[in-house]
Amino acid sequence: MNIKQRTQRLKSFMKDNAIDVALISNFENQFYFSGLKAILYSRPILLVIEKDQESLIIPALEEEHAKEKTNADHLYIYNEVENRTGGRSYLEQVDTVLSKLEKGSTVGIEYNALPTDITLKLMESGFDIRNIQDEVATMRAVKSDEEIEAMRHSGRLVSNALEKTITNTKIGMSELEIDYYGNEYLFKEVPKHFPNSTLDYFVMSPSGVERTNMPHVFSNTRQLENKDIIIHSRQVGLNGYRAECERTYFVGEPTPRQRETFEVMVQAQQAALNFIKVGVTAREVNQQALDVIKKAGLEEYVVHRTGHGIGVGFHEEPSLRFDNDLVLEPGMVFCIEPGIYIPGVGGFRHSDTVVLTESGTEVITDYPRDLDSLVIK
Amino acid sequence: MNIKQRTQRLKSFMKDNAIDVALISNFENQFYFSGLKAILYSRPILLVIEKDQESLIIPALEEEHAKEKTNADHLYIYNEVENRTGGRSYLEQVDTVLSKLEKGSTVGIEYNALPTDITLKLMESGFDIRNIQDEVATMRAVKSDEEIEAMRHSGRLVSNALEKTITNTKIGMSELEIDYYGNEYLFKEVPKHFPNSTLDYFVMSPSGVERTNMPHVFSNTRQLENKDIIIHSRQVGLNGYRAECERTYFVGEPTPRQRETFEVMVQAQQAALNFIKVGVTAREVNQQALDVIKKAGLEEYVVHRTGHGIGVGFHEEPSLRFDNDLVLEPGMVFCIEPGIYIPGVGGFRHSDTVVLTESGTEVITDYPRDLDSLVIK
Repeated sequence: MNIKQRTQRLKSFMKDNAIDVALISNFENQFYFSGLKAILYSRPILLVIEKDQESLIIPALEEEHAKEKTNADHLYIYNEVENRTGGRSYLEQVDTVLSKLEKGSTVGIEYNALPTDITLKLMESGFDIRNIQDEVATMRAVKSDEEIEAMRHSGRLVSNALEKTITNTKIGMSELEIDYYGNEYLFKEVPKHFPNSTLDYFVMSPSGVERTNMPHVFSNTRQLENKDIIIHSRQVGLNGYRAECERTYFVGEPTPRQRETFEVMVQAQQAALNFIKVGVTAREVNQQALDVIKKAGLEEYVVHRTGHGIGVGFHEEPSLRFDNDLVLEPGMVFCIEPGIYIPGVGGFRHSDTVVLTESGTEVITDYPRDLDSLVIK
Repeated sequence: MNIKQRTQRLKSFMKDNAIDVALISNFENQFYFSGLKAILYSRPILLVIEKDQESLIIPALEEEHAKEKTNADHLYIYNEVENRTGGRSYLEQVDTVLSKLEKGSTVGIEYNALPTDITLKLMESGFDIRNIQDEVATMRAVKSDEEIEAMRHSGRLVSNALEKTITNTKIGMSELEIDYYGNEYLFKEVPKHFPNSTLDYFVMSPSGVERTNMPHVFSNTRQLENKDIIIHSRQVGLNGYRAECERTYFVGEPTPRQRETFEVMVQAQQAALNFIKVGVTAREVNQQALDVIKKAGLEEYVVHRTGHGIGVGFHEEPSLRFDNDLVLEPGMVFCIEPGIYIPGVGGFRHSDTVVLTESGTEVITDYPRDLDSLVIK
């Protein structure tokens, strides 16, 4: 990860915009700018980026972790143990950091992430606050070659894991059980091929007509019945960089209405995949998928955008939605996943991850999308 | 879940403190007061509690989910699709909600959770803001019988899962692979016994002297070597209520220094478990464990508190730390986990979950804690 380059770019932005210090609180952004991805518990972490130094406010139990993963110039450690030096709490160390800033400094923060307590401190201390969330999102949206290479690995892993789940699915199994087959693959295979690596994964498999109509629900213990529809959704992040693959599939024969809707969804996804490239706008990609769905008379059953950026985050910018006129650039990576959700019929959504390059597009996830391949008998 | 009672209690607090409306943004608190546990992505959710109604600001794709899980009087839906009615964005719907409030209303928010963008809106609109995070944390700290019953199930599940991981551990396996055995158990067994249930789980298994010295790191692909020390850490949440079980163990013989330190850690945990009960203070429980560690001359290697509350959250109040004079009450549930982390020797920590009742204590996790049981040969 080119953390130095990233931090340098942020510092240039800060300089150009007369921002003296950036407080980074979103944990994905902290990973992006420091290399530290902490387990989020009750102990907050704050990354402080100044012109000439970077610091972390961290709990004592993350000290070794931060030393291993980051090049922070200063660690402001807060302790839970009486006889140790350093601050006693996160907020106390925030005060320490703020007390060292020049009076009236301009502080860049993520408006959509920094909690109220810190913001009030900044305002009460007379600092000017400025929103830097969009600049950070814009930076993260364009991936380096190294980031894309990590995502290619994740693309293969997530596709293989998805295959394990789909091919092992049987009537009577629960959503959690089918998730397990893909997870087992990841837990067993990743360590063999990727030494000293981290693995993030996410999986959900809503099943049946009602639950597939809820695009985002955790898998539960519902058991699959004959003729069930399932949306199996997976993300894998190798060393922090994610890819997503999702398939709608059936155990037993779908109904004619389900077949028709499935075909529309597949064509909508294909239309967006065919169209997306450097130079078109996010809005246009969204529209390609919607046009197919509209032509089939199913537009009223669309409840979400055609897709989103992916990388360090589950979802990140750019969003492929109707009001986004952004022109797509090389190095952007998207999940293409138009969905159709019809009460009484089911939810229908595939997702694949595609990398945009100067010379074209590269779909980094791979599993059949056609109905014949996705009816388990 | 007695959501009505909880909401009623919050409303009484609001009334007593002249708070007109509460905006709940922390997702655990949203689950506690509404029943909706959404998958957190790029789409924020806000729970709005007023004297005579409860509302949710939610993305369109959570509409069905919210209808199934909550009794919200109003859903303020924001859409990503052009032809649908309702707001276009989360912030637009926040504006809608705020525009309906009386001028100068007092708004209760979680200072440690509500992001800056909403807080600034509140301040710009002339609302008074008030911090309600402590009241909510206090409510969550005392569990109902129903909550405790769910946690007992989680305690059995997490103990069994931990057993699967420990007993299947072999030299050459990676941290991710050993995690898998416990996960497999959960994915296969939970669906058999708990219909229509959700399962949250968390696991990490730092291994070796260096990594066990980092109390919170995600499992990676490091492969176990002969004589490695491992801290296997697990949480399971059945239907949203968690229990935690952790064990320090060895593949191959520990060194004499490791044996000594292990014994001190076990005694420290036992001292806190023996002592904790209704009527003592959080600080005193913390001190019991520390006294044992201090007597052994290892106090400088303590980097975190003796324990924490658990329930809906990974960690929640009350914190068992040196500066907490809270008197413990019936219905509180704690993880007791004093740790000792010695560079060059390893990290040592067990954790068990204990419920406080009028009549005594009940440890709801169960796996041997002694060294003989925790050396895998």
